[in-house]
Amino acid sequence: MIVVKVGGSLGIDYDAVCADIARLWRSGQKLVLVHGGSGETNRVAQALGHPPRFVTSPSGYTSRFTDRETLEIFEMVYCGKMNKGIVERLQRLNVNAVGLSGLDGRIFEGRHKGSVRVVENGKTLVLRGDHTGTVEKVNVGLIELLLNAGYLPVLSPPAASYEGVAINVDGDRAAAALAVALKAEALLLLSNVPGLLRDFPDEASLIRRIPAADVETYMEFAQDRMKKKVLGAAEAVAGGVGRVIFGDARAGEPVSAALAGAGTVVQ
Amino acid sequence: MIVVKVGGSLGIDYDAVCADIARLWRSGQKLVLVHGGSGETNRVAQALGHPPRFVTSPSGYTSRFTDRETLEIFEMVYCGKMNKGIVERLQRLNVNAVGLSGLDGRIFEGRHKGSVRVVENGKTLVLRGDHTGTVEKVNVGLIELLLNAGYLPVLSPPAASYEGVAINVDGDRAAAALAVALKAEALLLLSNVPGLLRDFPDEASLIRRIPAADVETYMEFAQDRMKKKVLGAAEAVAGGVGRVIFGDARAGEPVSAALAGAGTVVQ
Repeated sequence: MIVVKVGGSLGIDYDAVCADIARLWRSGQKLVLVHGGSGETNRVAQALGHPPRFVTSPSGYTSRFTDRETLEIFEMVYCGKMNKGIVERLQRLNVNAVGLSGLDGRIFEGRHKGSVRVVENGKTLVLRGDHTGTVEKVNVGLIELLLNAGYLPVLSPPAASYEGVAINVDGDRAAAALAVALKAEALLLLSNVPGLLRDFPDEASLIRRIPAADVETYMEFAQDRMKKKVLGAAEAVAGGVGRVIFGDARAGEPVSAALAGAGTVVQ
Repeated sequence: MIVVKVGGSLGIDYDAVCADIARLWRSGQKLVLVHGGSGETNRVAQALGHPPRFVTSPSGYTSRFTDRETLEIFEMVYCGKMNKGIVERLQRLNVNAVGLSGLDGRIFEGRHKGSVRVVENGKTLVLRGDHTGTVEKVNVGLIELLLNAGYLPVLSPPAASYEGVAINVDGDRAAAALAVALKAEALLLLSNVPGLLRDFPDEASLIRRIPAADVETYMEFAQDRMKKKVLGAAEAVAGGVGRVIFGDARAGEPVSAALAGAGTVVQ
């Protein structure tokens, strides 16, 4: 079993990712696909007159401030356009994909953080009305039901709070929690960079191998969105996932290449 | 087993529908929910600068012309905002709902009509690039898998073409095909009117009962969107569904009321 997370940034080749996944799936590889949608969410939010607002936590992580209107735009893009677009690509390749969010069957559950502490212009503020949280529980029953019946699950945030409210959660960390819960051999975090770069954005500075025990010390090289991937990788290896690979989803055979050792391998 | 279809027009009280469904579900009633999203799709399409285009077929049926961009907006609203909004309402009521489109597991399959004949200003034209079709096949395997495991399926267009391409299909007729495939006792088509009206929009002119054998003769009373409901009802009763009820989803307990005989009952 492997868990493949493909990001939502500009430059990702979803056709290439889906073609590669279809080949692997037909060869008998059990897998679950998790996807993002951040870039498209920003575009649609802007077009709808409700532009995205990103906030930085006191510990330096960036996230989307998700008021109710943003949550609905987020659902439109992640669960509508992105999820069904990926399911359609896979169905066209004769893979019987089933697209679900973390709300469906409460696949991803966690605590709803109604307010968030953020740093703006050097000051710490508390913003209320946030619909975010962190995946604390993965209900694998539905995933296993689908896999055992021959369906390929395609998953996306949001998650469900313990009260059943939709919450925006980080997709990389959700994929990490899923990989742990499914006892996956590998977690692939694919995005629009070749892996973790020692000297961002110089792609020649790719870090090839990270010993699992040292992953947190590599946080210093992670910029912006890569921070949550490193955090997710640390959580996955701590939870028993054999290897985590930061791979490139811009072209070629992104999943096969990562499994063959391209990108940054945490092991 | 009953199939409940709730429309997507202005005035529908989704909180009331979900609360009623949660009560029935907890009392042991097996059911599948199908929903629309037409009103909200129009609003979002307008806001995104790609306003809806409705066309009328030579036989007088109105439908949405669905180019690729419209299809993606359609998916955003139906599969994203509407579907996850309904799943969230049910999850908050402790009903373990799972939201899916007809693409997922190819639940709804049909032929892709790439072009459509339309009448405009008295002339018949052929429009190309349409992503529409009609549900010809319902793959109940995934629905039954979910129901048997205790999940309430919440379904929405689009469907999958036989080639796996997303196609916009009429939700009422999809629900009718589903009710036939599941051998449902009843199909409820709930919208923002009390039922079929002899003298639209006079609600006092509600037609209370229609003998199943005569349903097509009542087509003359159907306006606009009600035409496809009458067509769906005819298809459902011809396929062995015991009764079809056109009910009111604007308030109260819409599902229970329809089951108790309110609205227009085709039997």
